[in-house]
Amino acid sequence: MRPVAVVGIGKTAFGAFPDRDLRSLAVEAGNRCLEDANAQPSQVEAFYLGNFAGPSFVGQNHLAPYVAGAMGITGVPATRFEAACASSGAAFYHAVMAVAAGIHDTALVVGVEKMTSQPTPKVAEILAGAGDSTGEVRAGATFPALFAMIARRHMHQYGTTREHLAAVAVKNHANGAKNPLAHMRKVITLEQALNGKPVADPLTVYDCSLVSDGAAAVLIAPLDRAAEFAHRPLIQILGIAQISDHVALDTKDDITTFAAVRAAGEKAYKMAGLTPANIDLAEVHDCFTIAEIVATEDLGFAPKGQGGFFAAAGETSLSGSKPLNTSGGLKSKGHPVGATGVGQICDIVQQLRGDAGDRQVAKHSIGLAQNLGGSGATAVVSILGVVGA
Amino acid sequence: MRPVAVVGIGKTAFGAFPDRDLRSLAVEAGNRCLEDANAQPSQVEAFYLGNFAGPSFVGQNHLAPYVAGAMGITGVPATRFEAACASSGAAFYHAVMAVAAGIHDTALVVGVEKMTSQPTPKVAEILAGAGDSTGEVRAGATFPALFAMIARRHMHQYGTTREHLAAVAVKNHANGAKNPLAHMRKVITLEQALNGKPVADPLTVYDCSLVSDGAAAVLIAPLDRAAEFAHRPLIQILGIAQISDHVALDTKDDITTFAAVRAAGEKAYKMAGLTPANIDLAEVHDCFTIAEIVATEDLGFAPKGQGGFFAAAGETSLSGSKPLNTSGGLKSKGHPVGATGVGQICDIVQQLRGDAGDRQVAKHSIGLAQNLGGSGATAVVSILGVVGA
Repeated sequence: MRPVAVVGIGKTAFGAFPDRDLRSLAVEAGNRCLEDANAQPSQVEAFYLGNFAGPSFVGQNHLAPYVAGAMGITGVPATRFEAACASSGAAFYHAVMAVAAGIHDTALVVGVEKMTSQPTPKVAEILAGAGDSTGEVRAGATFPALFAMIARRHMHQYGTTREHLAAVAVKNHANGAKNPLAHMRKVITLEQALNGKPVADPLTVYDCSLVSDGAAAVLIAPLDRAAEFAHRPLIQILGIAQISDHVALDTKDDITTFAAVRAAGEKAYKMAGLTPANIDLAEVHDCFTIAEIVATEDLGFAPKGQGGFFAAAGETSLSGSKPLNTSGGLKSKGHPVGATGVGQICDIVQQLRGDAGDRQVAKHSIGLAQNLGGSGATAVVSILGVVGA
Repeated sequence: MRPVAVVGIGKTAFGAFPDRDLRSLAVEAGNRCLEDANAQPSQVEAFYLGNFAGPSFVGQNHLAPYVAGAMGITGVPATRFEAACASSGAAFYHAVMAVAAGIHDTALVVGVEKMTSQPTPKVAEILAGAGDSTGEVRAGATFPALFAMIARRHMHQYGTTREHLAAVAVKNHANGAKNPLAHMRKVITLEQALNGKPVADPLTVYDCSLVSDGAAAVLIAPLDRAAEFAHRPLIQILGIAQISDHVALDTKDDITTFAAVRAAGEKAYKMAGLTPANIDLAEVHDCFTIAEIVATEDLGFAPKGQGGFFAAAGETSLSGSKPLNTSGGLKSKGHPVGATGVGQICDIVQQLRGDAGDRQVAKHSIGLAQNLGGSGATAVVSILGVVGA
């Protein structure tokens, strides 16, 4: 396996864009990425498309050649990867492994979702397809309900409070307000977060991520070819892993932790030769505030049960010891499902390059991205670092 | 890149199974495959699932861990691949490349589709999602219409006749009648084929493949580990390629040929060090009879324009010079979209092993499988051979 670098990134704004279709978003992100790398479509040797539910949201399937063709990319393998909310994380994992193993040199990975053209009940129904349709979904358990159960159990077992959950929301809204590409650029107070409209007790509307449209793209290449592309410093993928688990939440022994995230984290840390202490900042999958707290623990940033206390103490803020979701996270930046995994990689690269503007953190040599599918059936963890830092 | 072998195959029957759900079909094929290889779920290092439209057909997404978990496979990468009718061909391609490059040793590839639970107009709408929703689909062009245009043009340009199309149907029905796992085991006459109910002129119902439920699975491993598994002779993947093109048919200069199939074929032949003359038998993607004729030409089995004449002369029958679709093809065996690509690999392996019963062809050292997505936007070509033959 040879070292692999991210040589270009590109994102659309995340938001509700009634006049944009799925393809135009994906193409915009892809083109921005090639421009960032100063690369041409003809240099792309393989095309990886992460998308959760294009057929259900907009009636379009066969999405990889559909997007690639519009970018002028044909004659290469072009494939769609689906792994629920970790769809583009899975696409990224497969692309990185293929380049690491020498199957391809340059690979373009695009994540996209166009969600806001459907009414809310239909969106909930489509998202429920990431759960077990024959069991939990049939019983009426949507994702807010599943994560509410996780929150309840975490509170019972570890003393996590609603203030802890709210602290995550307040911090992510503060970060998102500084991100020009975020969906909801709105600072909120702890009181507002605590008094949000209930969704699934104990989760309020401020504990839930946003339904968004958007796309993100990264171009990868072997590290020894990275210098051919435009950007300095060079950013290397130090570790990466994708791990699966059962889909239904009721198959899990302990719902306050995700075994797939722990395993993917351990594998990625081992590959990178690093520990959680080495990570300067991370983008974690805060589909709900409780998910950020669980990720904080599963990735080893705080001891088991301490994730909520860690957030409430400010440790995960921009100036804290372990800044999490400096982009605003899924909570405030938005969660166009299929774009989220690759979007996280873009956000980390932006920080590592020192290009994060008002959100820039002081220490930015090594960053981690964690992408979650469903209630833990898919986890992808990637660790990126500045070469020579 | 190291040599890769198919060490196990497993299929369900293809057909209409109102009392079976998607997962039970996929698990049956996967378990049969592991049994065939005498392998355990714990030996599977990566799980590749090919599925076109599970969310639309049965409301279930996140299908790879959903199926893998039910087989007792967790803790590994489990990912769904979607490339329209070439979904499991794409999954197989990525799995083979990953094993060839040393990313994994054993990989299980399962293809599945459950289509018959939806009424016919809904099935047509879901299948149309493999075309360009903003262009041709909006204009009312379903897949039978698109392939009817291809047939019309092929007739005009090369003198292909309705009798040529019917010859393909008659041959595939004759083969399928001998296949215990085929959906429609019914011998038809040339006259019946010519007088079928019109679907999209010049195509009749006998020119169109079947809407089916079904699943297929293959287990792959490095050739130097193949002897650890049950089967002899050993079957090696000699060449493989996946190539993309534009989705919409109107973007193509010449609709009587698929550039992606030609390119994938050339690449696979080159990798294998073989020519079309070396291929003893092939499974080609006869979603419509005209597609088999075009594939015959694009893969170099007959000169351009001669595919129909070649079929009518009996060259593609079980006793012909180039037996095509000895399984009965999509036409008679059935076309559970996401299962088709891996199903073709199973059918080729069965012939190479000499296990094809009444359909067994005399020369069976080297076989080819060609899987097509949409009207040519994805093509996967695989060449398999008996080791030491």
